[in-house]
Amino acid sequence: MSKLAYLGPQGTFCEAALRLLAPDAERLPCANVGAALDAARDGAADGAVVPLENSVEGAITQTLDELAKGRSLHITGEVLLPVEFALLVRPGTELAQIKRIITHPAAHTQCRGFIERELPGAVVIAGSSTAAAAQEVSLPGSPYDAAISPAIAGEYYGLDAVASDIGDRSDTVTRFIQVSRPGPLPEPTGADRTSLVAFLRDDHPGALLEMLSEFAVRGVNLTRIESRPTGDGIGRYFFHFDLEGHIADARVGEAVSGLHRLCGDLRFLGSYPRADRVATQVKPGTADGDFDEAAQWLGKIRAGLA
Amino acid sequence: MSKLAYLGPQGTFCEAALRLLAPDAERLPCANVGAALDAARDGAADGAVVPLENSVEGAITQTLDELAKGRSLHITGEVLLPVEFALLVRPGTELAQIKRIITHPAAHTQCRGFIERELPGAVVIAGSSTAAAAQEVSLPGSPYDAAISPAIAGEYYGLDAVASDIGDRSDTVTRFIQVSRPGPLPEPTGADRTSLVAFLRDDHPGALLEMLSEFAVRGVNLTRIESRPTGDGIGRYFFHFDLEGHIADARVGEAVSGLHRLCGDLRFLGSYPRADRVATQVKPGTADGDFDEAAQWLGKIRAGLA
Amino acid sequence: MSKLAYLGPQGTFCEAALRLLAPDAERLPCANVGAALDAARDGAADGAVVPLENSVEGAITQTLDELAKGRSLHITGEVLLPVEFALLVRPGTELAQIKRIITHPAAHTQCRGFIERELPGAVVIAGSSTAAAAQEVSLPGSPYDAAISPAIAGEYYGLDAVASDIGDRSDTVTRFIQVSRPGPLPEPTGADRTSLVAFLRDDHPGALLEMLSEFAVRGVNLTRIESRPTGDGIGRYFFHFDLEGHIADARVGEAVSGLHRLCGDLRFLGSYPRADRVATQVKPGTADGDFDEAAQWLGKIRAGLA
Amino acid sequence: MSKLAYLGPQGTFCEAALRLLAPDAERLPCANVGAALDAARDGAADGAVVPLENSVEGAITQTLDELAKGRSLHITGEVLLPVEFALLVRPGTELAQIKRIITHPAAHTQCRGFIERELPGAVVIAGSSTAAAAQEVSLPGSPYDAAISPAIAGEYYGLDAVASDIGDRSDTVTRFIQVSRPGPLPEPTGADRTSLVAFLRDDHPGALLEMLSEFAVRGVNLTRIESRPTGDGIGRYFFHFDLEGHIADARVGEAVSGLHRLCGDLRFLGSYPRADRVATQVKPGTADGDFDEAAQWLGKIRAGLA
Repeated sequence: MSKLAYLGPQGTFCEAALRLLAPDAERLPCANVGAALDAARDGAADGAVVPLENSVEGAITQTLDELAKGRSLHITGEVLLPVEFALLVRPGTELAQIKRIITHPAAHTQCRGFIERELPGAVVIAGSSTAAAAQEVSLPGSPYDAAISPAIAGEYYGLDAVASDIGDRSDTVTRFIQVSRPGPLPEPTGADRTSLVAFLRDDHPGALLEMLSEFAVRGVNLTRIESRPTGDGIGRYFFHFDLEGHIADARVGEAVSGLHRLCGDLRFLGSYPRADRVATQVKPGTADGDFDEAAQWLGKIRAGLA
Repeated sequence: MSKLAYLGPQGTFCEAALRLLAPDAERLPCANVGAALDAARDGAADGAVVPLENSVEGAITQTLDELAKGRSLHITGEVLLPVEFALLVRPGTELAQIKRIITHPAAHTQCRGFIERELPGAVVIAGSSTAAAAQEVSLPGSPYDAAISPAIAGEYYGLDAVASDIGDRSDTVTRFIQVSRPGPLPEPTGADRTSLVAFLRDDHPGALLEMLSEFAVRGVNLTRIESRPTGDGIGRYFFHFDLEGHIADARVGEAVSGLHRLCGDLRFLGSYPRADRVATQVKPGTADGDFDEAAQWLGKIRAGLA
Repeated sequence: MSKLAYLGPQGTFCEAALRLLAPDAERLPCANVGAALDAARDGAADGAVVPLENSVEGAITQTLDELAKGRSLHITGEVLLPVEFALLVRPGTELAQIKRIITHPAAHTQCRGFIERELPGAVVIAGSSTAAAAQEVSLPGSPYDAAISPAIAGEYYGLDAVASDIGDRSDTVTRFIQVSRPGPLPEPTGADRTSLVAFLRDDHPGALLEMLSEFAVRGVNLTRIESRPTGDGIGRYFFHFDLEGHIADARVGEAVSGLHRLCGDLRFLGSYPRADRVATQVKPGTADGDFDEAAQWLGKIRAGLA
Repeated sequence: MSKLAYLGPQGTFCEAALRLLAPDAERLPCANVGAALDAARDGAADGAVVPLENSVEGAITQTLDELAKGRSLHITGEVLLPVEFALLVRPGTELAQIKRIITHPAAHTQCRGFIERELPGAVVIAGSSTAAAAQEVSLPGSPYDAAISPAIAGEYYGLDAVASDIGDRSDTVTRFIQVSRPGPLPEPTGADRTSLVAFLRDDHPGALLEMLSEFAVRGVNLTRIESRPTGDGIGRYFFHFDLEGHIADARVGEAVSGLHRLCGDLRFLGSYPRADRVATQVKPGTADGDFDEAAQWLGKIRAGLA
């Protein structure tokens, strides 16, 4: 049984994601993304689960930046978790009794409609995380009547949900990834994703177009691009890419090799099954068989046999 | 004299940026970026100054998202402000007496080296902003001995700097922009930037490459690309672009029109002088004169005169 | 009634093409393509009809080269003429009597199967053109029994066809064009072609890719490219392009203007209805209405109104 | 000692090119390009020398078409031969005595200035080739006083040159190639050329741009493109490409393999030293060492070792 670090405390969405990705793993809550990744790096854990992006908030930049530096970690899986907030109370509290609510400001923002409609007179106080808010409510003598938290937090802190799925948008989703130290890659499934971090050798006009052309020419689709500052002044960026396909695929391997030649530094972040199981559409002429056939043809040509 | 909203409270880097951009303007501090932009939109102010990106932290996503929706605002200027932290104390306090420091966690991170070296025994408490931290220290009976804040905050709250420029990196910079309601554009200077927000009509493989090709074919260089989620699920993004040149430039106008035809929705965020005054390198064949000459040539051709 | 020069003598495929393009025109046979074009240039004729390419032999390079230099001429129409050879004889001659055949060597090549099958013992003598061959047969005391010629040549020289459509391939086609001195262009029909000659300003790696990108970005399809030597040494070429669409189309006008800016010299050879009447497929976002709408949008943006 | 077929008769420029390419080879004159190539194919000769392109006339289309079909032949070398015409006469004839000249019409065209200037009263009669013209003059009782021919023809037919290099342009050049049946390729020299024939799988808009992108992405420069009709109707073409570099070069091999995957049919025509000895400029990141390094990197990545 493995041990996985995650963004704690207990009761976070990240813990819920970990349970989906690795139901049997031992769980190690960490104070922040960097600590969770470091636990995976230094062996305190066998891996980590951290958030990568949210369909409303966008990229979790701390994760992007931590994965781009330090010792390499590989993504081995991902999960898309709906962001569903519950209104958690001590057993016996009724909705009408709630006067003081604690939660993280981002959660407050996402549940503003519910509060205005159902609890118009309530005061909302800012906590450090939605899970910590639940913990606060559970403490004896807590000044708070309710927490807006993931439902999972109720289990840990002995709270009941007086209302569920109270977010203003029902379709907000967070993408979590599981990472581990480099090792044998997950097998290709036909519905895979490959993640990379690319640092330009020299930043020149058209450099981004050149990078995208490496993918396009081999029929590899890009599903995400994120630019991040290198730290060396405004106007200097590096890039996170998500591609369709597995590094074991011939077209992906050749495209990524091309990017490696183009870039000063290219970091492989893993090839892993897509959470949505959407199979990669392979453009004619770019399947593994096409590459094999072309390699054999080239071999004959070079040997003077054709 | 105009009135400009900004990200408050008094004493923020944002206020320092505003003073550089518009020394004579009346200043209206706002609680957050959205509030500052709304003040500019609804006429409570003539414009606003907000942060857009930081050379270490990256994009200020709240600014990106607020500019992409709601009523249009135009960027009319930008400034690059070095992030220089001072250690602010009540008059009379000496370095050796400092035991409890308050600041925003991001500032704490960036000054960790100084604290470990100079104040190894001090405790650092998290405040809501670096300017608010200075305000805290200035209150009678404050439990804090010092604040890590912009030097400008000392002026407001009657504090002295016992140490200046204490960040671990001396080259961190934030880019602030000044915005106002749409109106006559700043004149082209030869060293201009144009900002856009592009929403794809339909998200298909190669869409980003197509957008970049619109720029490349007209010799327009891209200086920044930021992807942001549309909110409609993981994998759906829109894009912020910064280009070299002014919308009044023929090549920029044609490229942006091409992008407009390609995109479902394209929002113009302004053309304005670059803070670094770096003149745009114009590729042969893409100067205004070249476009004029080509238009005249085309006119003759279409009229059957050549 | 107009007068058109053509590649003579009387009875050529070129004359047949002329009759299809301008049934009522007076016809002026010329000794070669250059002479026919010069007749159009200097006013000896109102225009000319010359061959441009053949589906088996390829480009008629003399036409390409003559159109690229000297005074401009515009293509105003085209026709695709099947290359159908007839075996022409003096009235009364029967197939079995044919011993000596005269024709142009290219026609001999294309009718080799028929001759081997039907006239295995016949000798084939090379003439200067298929029409001149017919003329030879018609002369009193001609040593030839038959000519392989266009059927039209029979009319002129009083010959009968003992066999028709005797080519080995029934689908060979020649594309003829009608040209005239520059003047009002043919109206767009929705199924038009535009022809250009492009000379590179400086020949550098990737120059051809740049030219093709000018078309691709505006959604303009290329239907033909021919490279021709500039005369300044091996490795220096200029290019003939055929495009889908009319120079009056916004997308074609912008693409051609872009090419004009890119090239040292760009010669417009005309916009005219396609012989095959295949309507141009217009890519979304590249119709005239899309360009108009984008131009209006840009106008508002530049005026500070949006 | 090898035997090479060439475009005869004796005394052609093609024979002069053969002597430069293979001074010691036995020479087999053939009636046309197709016959010379067939001699190489069927073993009547060990190879052949034929013209490929001329700096004024352009491609020798018969050579292009013959190389694209039938059994494969490989180009193993090339030479650039200046087209220098001499005025050849029987020994004793003086310039002032020349009244009747025989030559090929193309040579006539290229020497028109000399004739008008030096021999204004002379008549020029068309012969079937410049070498055959020399042969005519050498015959006893010849009605011709002089031939415009390659100087080499004088040797064969016992003629003297009363004037040399009489062409109007002194810089006309023909590129000749040496071909042989497939076998071990010439070693890479750093100044090589690779020739290909590409047939599209399906002809669609943008197909040519896609083909050029295969080269561009690997930093391979195109030096020549020729389109030729497939024979299946106007508007259907295949392409001859000349590239910088040798198929043994990693970047060329990968680009050509990519083209092979893209095309229905791709024929390799050889990699051979350039006649001009201009070394290939290798773009950063595309040298063999860069490909090796990238392949090793990819190997480690796929093995989970990095």
